[in-house]
Amino acid sequence: MNEPQGKRTSVFTTPWFQIFAEQTPDEGQPHYVIEGKDFVVIVAVTRDNRILLVRQYRPPVAEVTLELPAGHIEPGETPEQAARRELREETGHEADNFKLLASLSPSVARYTNRMYCFFAADARPVINPTPEGEPVSLVFYDRGARALIDDKEFYSAPSCAALYLAALRGDLPM
Amino acid sequence: MNEPQGKRTSVFTTPWFQIFAEQTPDEGQPHYVIEGKDFVVIVAVTRDNRILLVRQYRPPVAEVTLELPAGHIEPGETPEQAARRELREETGHEADNFKLLASLSPSVARYTNRMYCFFAADARPVINPTPEGEPVSLVFYDRGARALIDDKEFYSAPSCAALYLAALRGDLPM
Repeated sequence: MNEPQGKRTSVFTTPWFQIFAEQTPDEGQPHYVIEGKDFVVIVAVTRDNRILLVRQYRPPVAEVTLELPAGHIEPGETPEQAARRELREETGHEADNFKLLASLSPSVARYTNRMYCFFAADARPVINPTPEGEPVSLVFYDRGARALIDDKEFYSAPSCAALYLAALRGDLPM
Repeated sequence: MNEPQGKRTSVFTTPWFQIFAEQTPDEGQPHYVIEGKDFVVIVAVTRDNRILLVRQYRPPVAEVTLELPAGHIEPGETPEQAARRELREETGHEADNFKLLASLSPSVARYTNRMYCFFAADARPVINPTPEGEPVSLVFYDRGARALIDDKEFYSAPSCAALYLAALRGDLPM
């Protein structure tokens, strides 16, 4: 990333993200910039092409949703190491090859961080999943990518972007 | 949306979004929820299949990026009305039919709001674009959706999700 044009001042902090007000010379209102950790999103399929998903209650939307396995990149980790760890923790699965599909921004209008989208084929169970925090259940989605696109529970943009990209790149059978 | 399970308290406010701390009985740390306006993202193509894009400097990533036309839904507007207005304001174009591709969440892990993704074919120029705020330039992207997926300036997840979805749904020629 380039250097910001304006001066950034921290105005609100949580354990997960921090908000900065960036004042540029030509603007009245500051631009509010959200700084979060980089994260990974993983499109992983089993040998028989079932997509590994997680189902959990999400407070912001007050609903149970389906998402791809995902999580923050911890200090010292590469994006691929984080993807391997998150897939293991959230689904109990491993895979030999993790292919980087793209490095996207959650939103260039608001966020400084990046989301790394990976594809992993032939995922196999190795341990019991050990999700942190709230109850998360593992779903082996066997109705195919086309049905998942239309699934009413699957609507979080980071998951959608990664899944659609894997489909368009030809990694994920439709 | 359902009612939140926990009590939400406003903890930080800007003109564009507000942050609430949601305290649920079983958690120590509150869940920080970001409430922004609903917004629209528009995949619009001209009669000769050029994709309408906007190029602008984005402070959070400190880079010039390519995005689809997008913007907030104002009070009293339907999502489709907002999509028609934003396309006209940002690109000076209109179209007869706006097809709703999906209503996604920017992120179910953090946001309460929704992003409505539209597809509009046969977009035609009607007025000069009148973007608000910082300089925004209109781009007629004529290298096709496949090249856009690989374009290094096109990496904002809301734009990517909407574009990929239009491609997968068969609206946007690859």
